[in-house]
Amino acid sequence: MDDHVYKIVELVGSSTTSIEDAIQTAIKRADQTLRNLRWFEVLQTRGHIESGAVHHYQVVLKAGFTLEDAGG
Amino acid sequence: MDDHVYKIVELVGSSTTSIEDAIQTAIKRADQTLRNLRWFEVLQTRGHIESGAVHHYQVVLKAGFTLEDAGG
Amino acid sequence: MDDHVYKIVELVGSSTTSIEDAIQTAIKRADQTLRNLRWFEVLQTRGHIESGAVHHYQVVLKAGFTLEDAGG
Amino acid sequence: MDDHVYKIVELVGSSTTSIEDAIQTAIKRADQTLRNLRWFEVLQTRGHIESGAVHHYQVVLKAGFTLEDAGG
Amino acid sequence: MDDHVYKIVELVGSSTTSIEDAIQTAIKRADQTLRNLRWFEVLQTRGHIESGAVHHYQVVLKAGFTLEDAGG
Amino acid sequence: MDDHVYKIVELVGSSTTSIEDAIQTAIKRADQTLRNLRWFEVLQTRGHIESGAVHHYQVVLKAGFTLEDAGG
Amino acid sequence: MDDHVYKIVELVGSSTTSIEDAIQTAIKRADQTLRNLRWFEVLQTRGHIESGAVHHYQVVLKAGFTLEDAGG
Amino acid sequence: MDDHVYKIVELVGSSTTSIEDAIQTAIKRADQTLRNLRWFEVLQTRGHIESGAVHHYQVVLKAGFTLEDAGG
Amino acid sequence: MDDHVYKIVELVGSSTTSIEDAIQTAIKRADQTLRNLRWFEVLQTRGHIESGAVHHYQVVLKAGFTLEDAGG
Amino acid sequence: MDDHVYKIVELVGSSTTSIEDAIQTAIKRADQTLRNLRWFEVLQTRGHIESGAVHHYQVVLKAGFTLEDAGG
Amino acid sequence: MDDHVYKIVELVGSSTTSIEDAIQTAIKRADQTLRNLRWFEVLQTRGHIESGAVHHYQVVLKAGFTLEDAGG
Amino acid sequence: MDDHVYKIVELVGSSTTSIEDAIQTAIKRADQTLRNLRWFEVLQTRGHIESGAVHHYQVVLKAGFTLEDAGG
Repeated sequence: MDDHVYKIVELVGSSTTSIEDAIQTAIKRADQTLRNLRWFEVLQTRGHIESGAVHHYQVVLKAGFTLEDAGG
Repeated sequence: MDDHVYKIVELVGSSTTSIEDAIQTAIKRADQTLRNLRWFEVLQTRGHIESGAVHHYQVVLKAGFTLEDAGG
Repeated sequence: MDDHVYKIVELVGSSTTSIEDAIQTAIKRADQTLRNLRWFEVLQTRGHIESGAVHHYQVVLKAGFTLEDAGG
Repeated sequence: MDDHVYKIVELVGSSTTSIEDAIQTAIKRADQTLRNLRWFEVLQTRGHIESGAVHHYQVVLKAGFTLEDAGG
Repeated sequence: MDDHVYKIVELVGSSTTSIEDAIQTAIKRADQTLRNLRWFEVLQTRGHIESGAVHHYQVVLKAGFTLEDAGG
Repeated sequence: MDDHVYKIVELVGSSTTSIEDAIQTAIKRADQTLRNLRWFEVLQTRGHIESGAVHHYQVVLKAGFTLEDAGG
Repeated sequence: MDDHVYKIVELVGSSTTSIEDAIQTAIKRADQTLRNLRWFEVLQTRGHIESGAVHHYQVVLKAGFTLEDAGG
Repeated sequence: MDDHVYKIVELVGSSTTSIEDAIQTAIKRADQTLRNLRWFEVLQTRGHIESGAVHHYQVVLKAGFTLEDAGG
Repeated sequence: MDDHVYKIVELVGSSTTSIEDAIQTAIKRADQTLRNLRWFEVLQTRGHIESGAVHHYQVVLKAGFTLEDAGG
Repeated sequence: MDDHVYKIVELVGSSTTSIEDAIQTAIKRADQTLRNLRWFEVLQTRGHIESGAVHHYQVVLKAGFTLEDAGG
Repeated sequence: MDDHVYKIVELVGSSTTSIEDAIQTAIKRADQTLRNLRWFEVLQTRGHIESGAVHHYQVVLKAGFTLEDAGG
Repeated sequence: MDDHVYKIVELVGSSTTSIEDAIQTAIKRADQTLRNLRWFEVLQTRGHIESGAVHHYQVVLKAGFTLEDAGG
């Protein structure tokens, strides 16, 4: 694992349900184009309010993926 | 939306159930006096421990609301 | 000046023109209800993009005002 | 204590004597209008200098108070 | 409560289920050796990804406990 | 807006004229390849000095854009 | 001094009198079990409020001590 | 450029007009005594308010200059 | 140099030898796909431990490259 | 006051007595060579421990002074 | 790996030779009492100067180790 | 040591060889004019890239020196 180079991208996912679901939404979408996603880290948790209640959560996260030999 | 001025307040909500519920608790209470709440951002997640288990979560958050023309 | 107590509020102003104008917009609006505003400090400068150009700037700032003797 | 919602305000107190006195000054003044103050946290300690000596200390602090049921 | 001295330790808990469960896992394990745990604070939320989905959450947290008179 | 996933990129724009112009320069250039740019946030403002005057401003910013369904 | 390895612990001390006394309280207590304490650094100064006055100060600090050869 | 050693100083400039002008004011003044200023970085943007409007901007910045061989 | 727009990417390189080698490893790999890399900045230095010794260093860094006119 | 340019220096003062005295010590010494000191801001409070008690406090602070017209 | 709980300790190592050697020194010493060290993260790099040259480097780091079932 | 007042300066050193050498370069140069340098602390490690390799490292550091009785 230790001779890999990783690239880190920053994503925002959202969900009307939970913080965990917002994270999953971002990762599932990023996985369509960035194979080899390996870890994530939450940078910020926020959301929108409507009628005095949370309408949806937004989670800003960093995700790292392995750079294969001629990818990028 | 872009010609509004917002005011941001800092709140702490708590819940014995989940982080999301602590956020909702703070927003529901603030909504009694601050109409027009529009977004929130989590600043800190913490909590109290009793008998080796989480007794309740406390979430510190900022929430922004629209300042109407002679409000404050 | 040194025996005063100040209260600090957090505001967001916006402008389609400039960062300075977004600051002025927030302060002018806050001044309708918070007399005695004395200083400000920019916390964050951001904005919205439309059609590949800045549509408006948003400046998050703190502003301090003197608490007079029975105000709040 | 755990089902309360707290609101946090930011204050600046000053004193020619000590850092502790500047904190007390801010809290005593805020207590005139914000009942139920419960805790504080120092954000910044600074001051003014005259003739090569500290003229007064200024302490920026956050203070939290319980939101009672229809307060704000 | 105010004449106690507390010690703070840093822990990492993990869970395949939720952020709250990762917090509980860390606290339950620490409680085996550190009696008198009183509060926690989340420092970082991260996790591992497998096959384009969150495999498990990892929460880094600080937890404080009361130092009894000759403990440590 | 809330079911989108956003990707965030970091850019540096420059201008001999103003901070606002440096922001516009970065966004206009990024818009050639990243459609759907939606917001930005300034991370750092700096610049180069020649002959005792600002020669040009450099603004480091984050910009977010909507990930469409099979983009990346 | 330079060939030592130090370990750093995090402590919270409190005092109804002053910030300095809260620091001393934490260090005196830690010294019962951690010999060789060498330096400290204040991380946070906070406190509890009762009846509109500071009831006690709490200081969070790091303290470093020399690891002797088979200690820990 | 890469074998130089730079020294960094911290300055505060002000202007009633704009943030850019406050930066220029600080750099022009520092250039009277510190030759070889090469770059700057904004640390903080703040200002004073009078009668509900910005009276002047204050910009705190770091500026770096080349240390020539026996300068300082 | 001042009319360029730069894009910044975040990378993680590793090495069993040194921090410098971990930086070089990340840059060499990124250079396969991102031409025009111009500068880097270290965000974090960490590593893995095996049998009581550093097994490899991991350096998280940002690297900036010039955006040519229709690149991205 | 607003057309001045200030320079900021960083100092460390110490005292066996109190945090306030450590601040005063640094300012009094700096005043021997830097006339026109106007304000200070505490960056860090730390100290040395001997025999399980604070031996002396060290306060790191920034202090700003007015640059007169051909000073530096 | 994901069902473990880790504890994190903070250490300072030093070396007259290099930053890497200071890291190794801290880890080797900590390994005498904390088995199962798994990773480290550098928090701060500093050092002492004598006669205008680095006398030794000091590296402050966090190191994480697996808590086995009844350890602590 | 504890009754001294220190002044802290910020420097940038560079080296084509290593991070340690960049630190040494800055300290050796500063020592020509600032006698009594006592410690340093690394603030940032960065560098320039040419042809896909590190061309030189740049280290930003703070260095503290003793203020003798009429120095500055």
